[in-house]
Amino acid sequence: LSKNRQIFIKDVPQAEVAENHFEHRTGVIPDPGPGQVLVKTILLSVDPANRAYMNFDTFNPKMGAGQVLGAFGIAEVLSGDGLDPGTLVFCQPGWQEYAAIDTATAIPVKVRSKLSHHLGVLGLTGMTAYFGMLDIGEPREGETVLVSAAAGATGNVAGQLARIHGARVVGITSSDEKNRYLQDELGFAATVNRKSPTFFDDVKAACPDGVDVFFDNTGGPALDAALQVFNQKSRLVVCGAISTYNTDRPGAALNIQLTQLALLRLKVQGFVVLDDIARWPEAEEKMAGWINAGALKPVEEIIDGLENAPRALIGLLAGENLGKRMVRVAPDPS
Amino acid sequence: LSKNRQIFIKDVPQAEVAENHFEHRTGVIPDPGPGQVLVKTILLSVDPANRAYMNFDTFNPKMGAGQVLGAFGIAEVLSGDGLDPGTLVFCQPGWQEYAAIDTATAIPVKVRSKLSHHLGVLGLTGMTAYFGMLDIGEPREGETVLVSAAAGATGNVAGQLARIHGARVVGITSSDEKNRYLQDELGFAATVNRKSPTFFDDVKAACPDGVDVFFDNTGGPALDAALQVFNQKSRLVVCGAISTYNTDRPGAALNIQLTQLALLRLKVQGFVVLDDIARWPEAEEKMAGWINAGALKPVEEIIDGLENAPRALIGLLAGENLGKRMVRVAPDPS
Repeated sequence: LSKNRQIFIKDVPQAEVAENHFEHRTGVIPDPGPGQVLVKTILLSVDPANRAYMNFDTFNPKMGAGQVLGAFGIAEVLSGDGLDPGTLVFCQPGWQEYAAIDTATAIPVKVRSKLSHHLGVLGLTGMTAYFGMLDIGEPREGETVLVSAAAGATGNVAGQLARIHGARVVGITSSDEKNRYLQDELGFAATVNRKSPTFFDDVKAACPDGVDVFFDNTGGPALDAALQVFNQKSRLVVCGAISTYNTDRPGAALNIQLTQLALLRLKVQGFVVLDDIARWPEAEEKMAGWINAGALKPVEEIIDGLENAPRALIGLLAGENLGKRMVRVAPDPS
Repeated sequence: LSKNRQIFIKDVPQAEVAENHFEHRTGVIPDPGPGQVLVKTILLSVDPANRAYMNFDTFNPKMGAGQVLGAFGIAEVLSGDGLDPGTLVFCQPGWQEYAAIDTATAIPVKVRSKLSHHLGVLGLTGMTAYFGMLDIGEPREGETVLVSAAAGATGNVAGQLARIHGARVVGITSSDEKNRYLQDELGFAATVNRKSPTFFDDVKAACPDGVDVFFDNTGGPALDAALQVFNQKSRLVVCGAISTYNTDRPGAALNIQLTQLALLRLKVQGFVVLDDIARWPEAEEKMAGWINAGALKPVEEIIDGLENAPRALIGLLAGENLGKRMVRVAPDPS
C-alpha cells in the first residue's frame, strides 16, 4: 500500500503564518477503529478558519505543534464501519492523503453538480452564506446589503444570495480587480476597496441609503465603517473575523456602544454553519436551482497537490483568491 | 386660570445629576396650536432614560439648558384638536403641570386597571419588558434567564414574564433587601447583589447551567459577568445601559470579541418599545390577564408632587426604587 503524505503543524504561528510553520512528512495509512472509516482525501477546503484553528478553541479544540492541521474536505470511503466503500463524504480529513475518521462525522455527499461545487457553493462556504444571509440577515427587496471579503468563498455567495432576494448589494474587497469581477460578473451594485485611503467615506458613498444588512467576514475597519451607516433595525451577521486571524491578536472587537446598539435596534448574531447540517440538503437543492437558472454563479479555484496546501492558505490570508479556494489531493473518482 | 408649574434644565449635568441642575419656575399655560391638544399631567414616569435625554440623542433630540425635562406620563386632555376633553392619554408632557403636545403623539389609554398600572406594568416599562423579553429573549421552559436591574420597573416585569414562560430566573440588583423581595414575592429562583466583592463568581454560582437569555438594563459589570456564562445560542436583550447614564462617559461597551460571539452563536439585539406601539393593546390584554390570574405582580411606588421629580430621578439613579417609580402631579380624575 502507498504511504500517507501528511502536513503537520511544526510551530504554532504567533502572527503571520509561513511555510516554515509546517512540516511535510510521510506516515503510514491508519487503520480505522470501531465506529470509524478510512477515507482517501480528494479535495481540501482552504479556509481562513484553518489559521484560526491554531489561535483558539473553535468547534475543534485549539490545534498545536505535532498535529496534522485540521481541514474540511471531500473524501472517498475506502473501508470501515457504517459506510460503503466508494461513498463520497464531506468530512475533516485534515492536511493528509488518508485519514481515519469517526463515521458519525462523515456526511455522504449526494452529487448534484461538479464535485468541487460540493465543497464550495454547495458545501461548507456556500451553506455558511445561505444560513447566515437568509436566516440572520433576512435581506428584503430594495434593502442595501453590505458584504466584507466579498470576493471570498463565503462572501461572493452571500452577496449573490442577497441580490437574488432583491437587495442592492455592495461588496468590500482588497483589490479593484476583484471589485470589477463582482460588478461585471456577479451583479454587485457597487464595491469598495478596503485599501483605499478614503475607505470610510467610500463605504458611505457606496451606501447612500445606509446599510440594512452587513454580512461580516472580517471584522476590523470594514465593521467600523459599517457601524457608521447602519439603518434602524439593521442586522449584523457575524460570520468571521478574518482580519485578525493571521495576527498576534486574533479576535476583533465590536466597537459599538450599547446605547447606540439599542437606538439602532441593531441585531448582531453569530452562527456556526455546522449547527444547521440537517437542513443542508434543502439548502443545497435551492442553491442548485439558482445555479441551474444562472442566478448564482460558482466561483472557485483549485490548486493541485497536497504539498501546496500551506502556500494556498498563506495566499488566501493575503487575499489573493477569487472565490472558493481548494487543494486537489487526488483526482475525482468518477 | 391657574399657572403652570414647570421644571427646567438649568445646567446639563456632566456626571451625576443633582437638584441644582434644575430650576423650578411658574409659567403660563400654553395654547395648543393646530394639530395639538392641551393636556394636564396626572402621573409622570421616572425613568433612567430621563437622565440619558441630557447625554445624547435618543428617540428625542438631546435636551439641554432652558428646556423642560422630557418625561412620559399620563395626562388628561383639556382642549384642542382631535381628542375629546377628558380623554386620558399616554404622552410626553415633560416635567410640568400643563403641556401642549402634538395630538398624533398622544395615545388614548383604555383603562383596564389602576391608572398607575398604565404607566408601569401595563405602560412604557411593562411593554418594554414584554417586547424585549418575549420577542427578542424568547425564554423557553427550563432555560436560565438573567436580568440586571431586576428590581427596577422594567427588570422586575421582564423577570416575572420569563418565569411565567417556564424559565428559571436569576436577578441582579444593588441590595440584599431587593433580592429578598424578588425571591420571596416575585418568584425569582436566585439573586445576586452587584455590590458583592465576589460578584463575578456569585453570578456563576447562581447560574450553574449557564445563561440562555440575559435581559440587560445596565451594561457594565453585570454584562461582563454574563459574558462568562452565556450558553450556545443565547440571547442578549439590550434594553439599556443605566450603569453609565449618570456618569461622564455614557454608553457602555460590549466587551466581547467577534469570534467568541460567533462561536457562542450569540444574538445581541437592541430595541425601542415605541416601535411596537401598534401591538401594545394586544400585549396589555395578555399582561392584564396574568395580573388577574396572580401570576404577574405590579410593583410600584408613587411620589407625590411635581416639585419632587428631581429627587425622584436622583434616587432612582442611585438604585433606591423598588419597581416602577412615578411622580403624582394631580389626582386621578375618576
